[in-house]
Amino acid sequence: MAVFINISMSLDGYVAGPDQTLEEPLGRGGEQLHEWIFPLASWREPHGLSGGEIGPEDDLVRESVDRTGAVIMGRRMFSGGSGPWESDPNADAWWGDNPPFHVPVFILTHHEREPVEKAGGTTFTFVTDGFESALEQALAAAGDKDVAIAGGAEAAQQALRAGVVDDLTLHLAPVLLGGGASLFDGVGTDLKLRLTNVLEGPHATHLEYAVER
Amino acid sequence: MAVFINISMSLDGYVAGPDQTLEEPLGRGGEQLHEWIFPLASWREPHGLSGGEIGPEDDLVRESVDRTGAVIMGRRMFSGGSGPWESDPNADAWWGDNPPFHVPVFILTHHEREPVEKAGGTTFTFVTDGFESALEQALAAAGDKDVAIAGGAEAAQQALRAGVVDDLTLHLAPVLLGGGASLFDGVGTDLKLRLTNVLEGPHATHLEYAVER
Repeated sequence: MAVFINISMSLDGYVAGPDQTLEEPLGRGGEQLHEWIFPLASWREPHGLSGGEIGPEDDLVRESVDRTGAVIMGRRMFSGGSGPWESDPNADAWWGDNPPFHVPVFILTHHEREPVEKAGGTTFTFVTDGFESALEQALAAAGDKDVAIAGGAEAAQQALRAGVVDDLTLHLAPVLLGGGASLFDGVGTDLKLRLTNVLEGPHATHLEYAVER
Repeated sequence: MAVFINISMSLDGYVAGPDQTLEEPLGRGGEQLHEWIFPLASWREPHGLSGGEIGPEDDLVRESVDRTGAVIMGRRMFSGGSGPWESDPNADAWWGDNPPFHVPVFILTHHEREPVEKAGGTTFTFVTDGFESALEQALAAAGDKDVAIAGGAEAAQQALRAGVVDDLTLHLAPVLLGGGASLFDGVGTDLKLRLTNVLEGPHATHLEYAVER
């Protein structure tokens, strides 16, 4: 079992642009980071869409989906909101009745909430007692599969600071966002990475790193 | 003739670490960015050293050296100092009597100074009337070769903001510096890049981008 981060980043190090809103959840320009993934069959399939491109980039996404037994994400990635759930206009999140995860998802939040069960195997569990607790629950839920830290930047930073990440894949988009959520902010300088694979795509370069212990 | 940037960067986007000093001109941890280049024959040769590794990374550096007809750099990269030259303890720069450039070098500075001629074809010309003037002089000096923007971050930013850069090679080192000179700071979000080549090395991933006009 491993813990991994798999995230799209701009050349200037942002995983979301400035001014995240409900209309623009990835901030100004942030959508560009994900352009590479939308055409892929392995992205379309869990979203209930047929067809799409196959090939090495598709394989890379499919491998990542296949290894994922549970997901950890931050509250802002989940709903775009903060504060008490009853005043969050997007408390049901972005993904409707059949979210694309199809595994247990653990949301880091300061605000308690009963778990939510969705169609297709996705459950949302709200964890208020910190990252370590979320990780423990996610590892238990993942069975013999791996735990994905889905984002945003803060969740990834917590995982990196906790020293629990085994591998990190950066999908490096050839764009600048000029501000927003900086992936490595506050992670410190002790993280040692070793490149294990590079894949070149038309809209992103996929860099796979193992974390050295 | 082209204008290009060829620079080593950390995963968190820094081309030098925090606290640059005369003892540590690349700032805390900054030396790690350049580990990949020191063993290469094409790096050793212009520094007057024999031997070294050959192979694809060496070829990449050699191509860059071969195309360079003139260099533009910032004052801080040149000497580590700022302010009037007479109070700069490193006014003669880092490279001794036979610097590794072997072409005309134009230094962006606010402080006038007579040109300096070194052995081996390197000349240092101090440009006080701005980046555009330095570029004009460098293009004239480069003959039918290209102009390299050597760094630091501010010189690269001026070139990127001026829209004169044709291609950009990032040597992405798998380390975090946590602060320092951020390559893309203030460049804005209009820069559109297209990946033209990737080369994987043991200490850096070399990403070659063409700037789209």
